Amino acid sequence: MQAKTVTVKLDKYCYDIIIGPGLIAQAALQIKHSLNQKDLHQTRVALITDTNVASLHLDILQAQLTKNKIHTVPIIVEAGEQSKSFSTLQIVIDKILSARLERGDCVLAFGGGVIGDLGGFAASIIRRGMKFIQMPTTLLAQIDSSVGGKTGINSQYGKNLIGAFHQPQCVIADTSLLDTLTLREFRAGYAEMVKYGLINQPDFFEWLEKNGQKVFSNGPIRTEAIVRSCQFKADIVARDEYETGERALLNLGHTFGHMLETATAYDPNRLIHGEAVAIGMILAHQFSTQLNLTSPTLTQRVEAHLKAMGLPTQLKDIPGKLPDAEALMTLITQDKKVSQNNLTFILTRGLGQSFIAKNVPSDIVLTFLKQKLAKIR
Amino acid sequence: MQAKTVTVKLDKYCYDIIIGPGLIAQAALQIKHSLNQKDLHQTRVALITDTNVASLHLDILQAQLTKNKIHTVPIIVEAGEQSKSFSTLQIVIDKILSARLERGDCVLAFGGGVIGDLGGFAASIIRRGMKFIQMPTTLLAQIDSSVGGKTGINSQYGKNLIGAFHQPQCVIADTSLLDTLTLREFRAGYAEMVKYGLINQPDFFEWLEKNGQKVFSNGPIRTEAIVRSCQFKADIVARDEYETGERALLNLGHTFGHMLETATAYDPNRLIHGEAVAIGMILAHQFSTQLNLTSPTLTQRVEAHLKAMGLPTQLKDIPGKLPDAEALMTLITQDKKVSQNNLTFILTRGLGQSFIAKNVPSDIVLTFLKQKLAKIR
Repeated sequence: MQAKTVTVKLDKYCYDIIIGPGLIAQAALQIKHSLNQKDLHQTRVALITDTNVASLHLDILQAQLTKNKIHTVPIIVEAGEQSKSFSTLQIVIDKILSARLERGDCVLAFGGGVIGDLGGFAASIIRRGMKFIQMPTTLLAQIDSSVGGKTGINSQYGKNLIGAFHQPQCVIADTSLLDTLTLREFRAGYAEMVKYGLINQPDFFEWLEKNGQKVFSNGPIRTEAIVRSCQFKADIVARDEYETGERALLNLGHTFGHMLETATAYDPNRLIHGEAVAIGMILAHQFSTQLNLTSPTLTQRVEAHLKAMGLPTQLKDIPGKLPDAEALMTLITQDKKVSQNNLTFILTRGLGQSFIAKNVPSDIVLTFLKQKLAKIR
Repeated sequence: MQAKTVTVKLDKYCYDIIIGPGLIAQAALQIKHSLNQKDLHQTRVALITDTNVASLHLDILQAQLTKNKIHTVPIIVEAGEQSKSFSTLQIVIDKILSARLERGDCVLAFGGGVIGDLGGFAASIIRRGMKFIQMPTTLLAQIDSSVGGKTGINSQYGKNLIGAFHQPQCVIADTSLLDTLTLREFRAGYAEMVKYGLINQPDFFEWLEKNGQKVFSNGPIRTEAIVRSCQFKADIVARDEYETGERALLNLGHTFGHMLETATAYDPNRLIHGEAVAIGMILAHQFSTQLNLTSPTLTQRVEAHLKAMGLPTQLKDIPGKLPDAEALMTLITQDKKVSQNNLTFILTRGLGQSFIAKNVPSDIVLTFLKQKLAKIR
């Protein structure tokens, strides 16, 4: 099957997302093409990956690059969210600088969202901006975090609070790599795909209701789902690169989702990001119903699909105890999406009819959270 | 005397540099104007400064801001280059995040080049970009580092290797603050002013030969010199914001200068930046003479002016021992301005006729350095 291309068209800059099975075998040629390197001997790449991806795929990729005379500096960090830290960032930067890579050289982020965010941020601040290529290896990274140029690390005060907008030269999404994901990781990425339907593409949601199960196998449906997702996100990013407006719609399910991730201390044994988003989307739909914006049957339909795909949808699906409603509210007001203390939520008026609701009063949210928590006590 | 304004006109963004004596007294109004804040109670500013500036001027500025209902979070770091580090950056970021400042809030950098570079870089990466205002307190910062949006910190592998381009909302240059500088610091800033003449403004160099001494007193000549310097740099930055071409001319004297700063381990007792640039500019002129690009009388004229203003001009003016020529060459090739191992120097064909010389062979540089060192042994 041939690879498909989605072009991200920004104001002053364009780049391609190449999507398809087995792309790792052509990675070197794609990298050289995107870097526009004529002298084959001079291509130099800092290959950032994590321990998990390295054990599965690093040898194949590195052999590919070496065979095509790309000089590679491999940098392997611990797998997991804790690598999106100041200390790991400093280690990565030091390794790139000690290898004497220059502004025209490239950081290649080969991994999931953590690696893309970390590698992209390092690329953006080394020598005030190195070149950058993404090779996302998770479904979440292929359809979401690798598209749009957001990079960054976490702070003790919250996720992604330190970062930059730094667009890649290209994104190479090999859909075959997704077969080495755990089912749970795959499902978590799938939740973000459902989100794209719920934002403003009811036909895509309906298509997923019919075809969702096939996305889990490496075939044309998977590729199509990833292409449609990337195209959707690329379009939003093209219209609002720096999130001054519409791009905030991508936060559907994320205000509640981040709240739950923080409440569970980002413990992957309890909750991973896409699961938090799945539950967060259901909460956003229920909250919309409570505000008389939409009907409860919509929530039921969305929940039925997420459940059918094996995703958690309710607070009771989270193992372990949750904080009380007041404590959860504090987590929401600490979220960076709070502007001047007015709460912003992405709510919905129907299937695929999401909108940005500003100035949501915090007492209504608190009451809603109390009701939800009461049901699981 | 009225304040003067230089406007930096970038591709998609403009901002003002306000220059004049006693501007600290109007700082609050200028800040609110630049931030376009209508609700006076909501202006929030992280005021970054260093121990030296804090002891001299912080009380006055903070009283000014408080009186005008600007909420201020003061952050005081150690004075000196060592604060341009990863660890100080992390402390600054943590303080800003713990004070819950948001994207629309502002980082106010009140100090010399170190504070501007550190504060600006923090502003650029917190929440992927906070607002930023510079209040430079040294001559070097007022005419050079605060203009053009370069921000960053140092790495063990070199100066300014980690950073970003982040333009301020405005720059407020109070020329009265310069009277609290040591004479040595003032002279060091003056060297960069001379550099602007030597790059491509022979009339400005001649003006400085006549008026230089008056720049050292707080009067209209000082303001005029700073205005002309800022205008010159603003024009170059406007034409080449990301240093893909002409902006590199600003590195006149800097390749040799950085070499000397590294060779003296950035020890301010031996050499400060502007002094290194003064000696570096003379070396660049002598090197140009050696390559038959210009006459030795030009170097003598430039050296005479720098000496008259109390600046060092020769290697023997640096206290302590210097490394040998081979070791100095290694320092040059480690400099970030080296692209793909071809040496780039800013050389000159006459007074104010500097140009970017690419592919300078390293053996010629080595021979030149050996000659220079032989004279001081």
